[in-house]
Amino acid sequence: MSNFACMKAEIITIGDEILIGQIVNTNAAWMGEKMNSIGVHVAQMTTISDTREDILNALKSATDRADIILITGGLGPTKDDITKESLAEFFNARMVFNKKAFEDIRKLFDSRGFKMNDLNKQQAEVPDNCTPLQNTAGTAPGMWFEENQCIYVSMPGVPYEMKPMITEQVIPMLRKKLGTDTIYQKTVLTQGMGESWIAEKISGWEDHLPSNVKLAYLPQPGIVRLRITATGNDKKQLEQQVEEEIIKLKKIIQDLIFGYDDDTLERIVGELLKEKNQSLSTAESCTGGYIAHLITSIAGSSDYYTGSVVSYANHIKERELGVNKEYLEKHGAVSETIVRQMAEGVKKKYKTDYAIATSGIAGPAGGTKEKPVGTVWIGIATPEKTLAQKFKFGNSRERNIRLTAVYALNMLRKEIK
Amino acid sequence: MSNFACMKAEIITIGDEILIGQIVNTNAAWMGEKMNSIGVHVAQMTTISDTREDILNALKSATDRADIILITGGLGPTKDDITKESLAEFFNARMVFNKKAFEDIRKLFDSRGFKMNDLNKQQAEVPDNCTPLQNTAGTAPGMWFEENQCIYVSMPGVPYEMKPMITEQVIPMLRKKLGTDTIYQKTVLTQGMGESWIAEKISGWEDHLPSNVKLAYLPQPGIVRLRITATGNDKKQLEQQVEEEIIKLKKIIQDLIFGYDDDTLERIVGELLKEKNQSLSTAESCTGGYIAHLITSIAGSSDYYTGSVVSYANHIKERELGVNKEYLEKHGAVSETIVRQMAEGVKKKYKTDYAIATSGIAGPAGGTKEKPVGTVWIGIATPEKTLAQKFKFGNSRERNIRLTAVYALNMLRKEIK
Repeated sequence: MSNFACMKAEIITIGDEILIGQIVNTNAAWMGEKMNSIGVHVAQMTTISDTREDILNALKSATDRADIILITGGLGPTKDDITKESLAEFFNARMVFNKKAFEDIRKLFDSRGFKMNDLNKQQAEVPDNCTPLQNTAGTAPGMWFEENQCIYVSMPGVPYEMKPMITEQVIPMLRKKLGTDTIYQKTVLTQGMGESWIAEKISGWEDHLPSNVKLAYLPQPGIVRLRITATGNDKKQLEQQVEEEIIKLKKIIQDLIFGYDDDTLERIVGELLKEKNQSLSTAESCTGGYIAHLITSIAGSSDYYTGSVVSYANHIKERELGVNKEYLEKHGAVSETIVRQMAEGVKKKYKTDYAIATSGIAGPAGGTKEKPVGTVWIGIATPEKTLAQKFKFGNSRERNIRLTAVYALNMLRKEIK
Repeated sequence: MSNFACMKAEIITIGDEILIGQIVNTNAAWMGEKMNSIGVHVAQMTTISDTREDILNALKSATDRADIILITGGLGPTKDDITKESLAEFFNARMVFNKKAFEDIRKLFDSRGFKMNDLNKQQAEVPDNCTPLQNTAGTAPGMWFEENQCIYVSMPGVPYEMKPMITEQVIPMLRKKLGTDTIYQKTVLTQGMGESWIAEKISGWEDHLPSNVKLAYLPQPGIVRLRITATGNDKKQLEQQVEEEIIKLKKIIQDLIFGYDDDTLERIVGELLKEKNQSLSTAESCTGGYIAHLITSIAGSSDYYTGSVVSYANHIKERELGVNKEYLEKHGAVSETIVRQMAEGVKKKYKTDYAIATSGIAGPAGGTKEKPVGTVWIGIATPEKTLAQKFKFGNSRERNIRLTAVYALNMLRKEIK
């Protein structure tokens, strides 16, 4: 196991709740990203039912395919959680009481001022061939196995228990065995045009990419991410190669690019405002607080964001944002006049340098012939001027809210000077 | 293939972007839920890379395991999309121009007023053994194959293209072949206590469940869902059996139960307000607009929701919500006094019957010894009174915001009379 960078990983998530679609498998995505970041190639993700037979079958096939097998789920204290027993059976191991695991659980309960019950005590029993991993946020210990020339790591399915286990224990343990990185990846983030349009525009550039450089299109609502992956031996050289390709790409679609890799519009806008020591407020109708939520999801946003008037009712637009009643009746709430007044109104009231305003018909009801569902006006007030733009999105309420937020944040970004 | 209800389905999602964790596999969850709702058992979900070899291997193993194989991804117009070619190779089929598929694509372009490019025209080429499925929201047709005593359905990976294809075409086509339903499922939604606590509390009830009835715990932040599944021959009888068990369960944990199945707190609160013809406003500090976003994600919420003051800055709390400056300095923004004033302030200002207010330290910074990260006050103003409660959540900003919203909505729900 000397060269981990060539190793294949498989992620097995156990749980009927995923198979029947009651929860989305965010764990697998998060683990995929973490493995990718240390140069481990995730070749497959598998989700199975929490039954003994399915767990044993999945472990067997993954052992044939992969070198590192990450397993989540089925470790809770309740009766439908059987991963631990199935792992013991797979490795032909005995279940034993583990003192370290017990102490870890006791510490957790002490820190929370709770008393352990019998179910919790049972959680300190683990297969005798494993190294237990501490769970700093819950009662089920993780387990690290080295068998069949593979590494198996079993972790709880609860995300805030699994995540610190990966970052604080699993990744350092894997890094110890890891060879040189042989992958360099950078993702160019674009906003404003669809995948086909971009593909046609940059097809000449794509055709001339070196053979060790691969491009992938990753579309999201309102955003297309272009992921460039270079593989080889020398990380420094790969990085240079990718950067050179990005310089060429910029010459073609400069105006669409807003950031790289894990950047988000809300983070970029926040950083720009912080840098310039300027402030922002929002007045949201059709987005109903979603833009405020995105902005405040960034830690430290209180440095530049004062708040929002979510003006869902028209009388709030009038009273709180100083929108003109006559205009409101004449043009309707979804209009250039009103969205400009909303942006200027909140900027003045909340005493900020910039403001975003949104007004639209998110749907599914409320559309008319002149203003069908998906019609949205976005207004941006800056220290110098106010601008407004009309958009025609689609029929999905969720998507219309999301698209409005993405376009609004990018319009603002371009105005921050 | 006479009895589809006993059939196993497998969902294959193709895409490096999932394996490296750049996107979360929401498609698989959505399809799992749809299959479950028509009584088809999803036994496995598999995510693989968009390479010819991995696609062929996954198709082969799924054919051994499953009867219905749903495939998404890799159908876009760009060069990294190779699912269609791999399917043709797997079935040993020829690629042919399909007139119906072409007409479907042309109609889509006409309706949007766009011109087709060469890449789009190529998308009308499909393997000669498939029935093309219309894509009403995009250019890549779906494909339905019946081979090897299996049904294979290949669909685009873009969710708003895949979803109507499933509901309008795939499900009706599957239903035609579907036998009697033999599953009845109901999920009881609880809020306020953890999984272990509930498990201990209801363990007697769980032990006495009939052998054909299965219980699963599905925890989410602040919420534990209890999914009860009965299997048998007579759907009516299964339904009765589950309802009887729920009546027994209610006697034990009545006060924790807020709804069933796909209910959400924001939807239930909305329905209660609508029913009573009452209105709501919110004043959000630590949740930063997230509660407003949840409420307005419900279509028709403008009937009862007037809006929110997202008062991120203290001067907004004073000026817009009438919070007392002296108290603010004495008690701090995260205090019972202030959260009560915020709730009463927005209720009065926005002229509503009810109001929610939140103030807390979401983290990761801003904690003190007296008020560590995760300290949150929630205030609820009703037509009769104002109440406030203190919570101590954890260290994750995202989770603290989510938990505050869940607890606040449930506190409000209990007060709506």
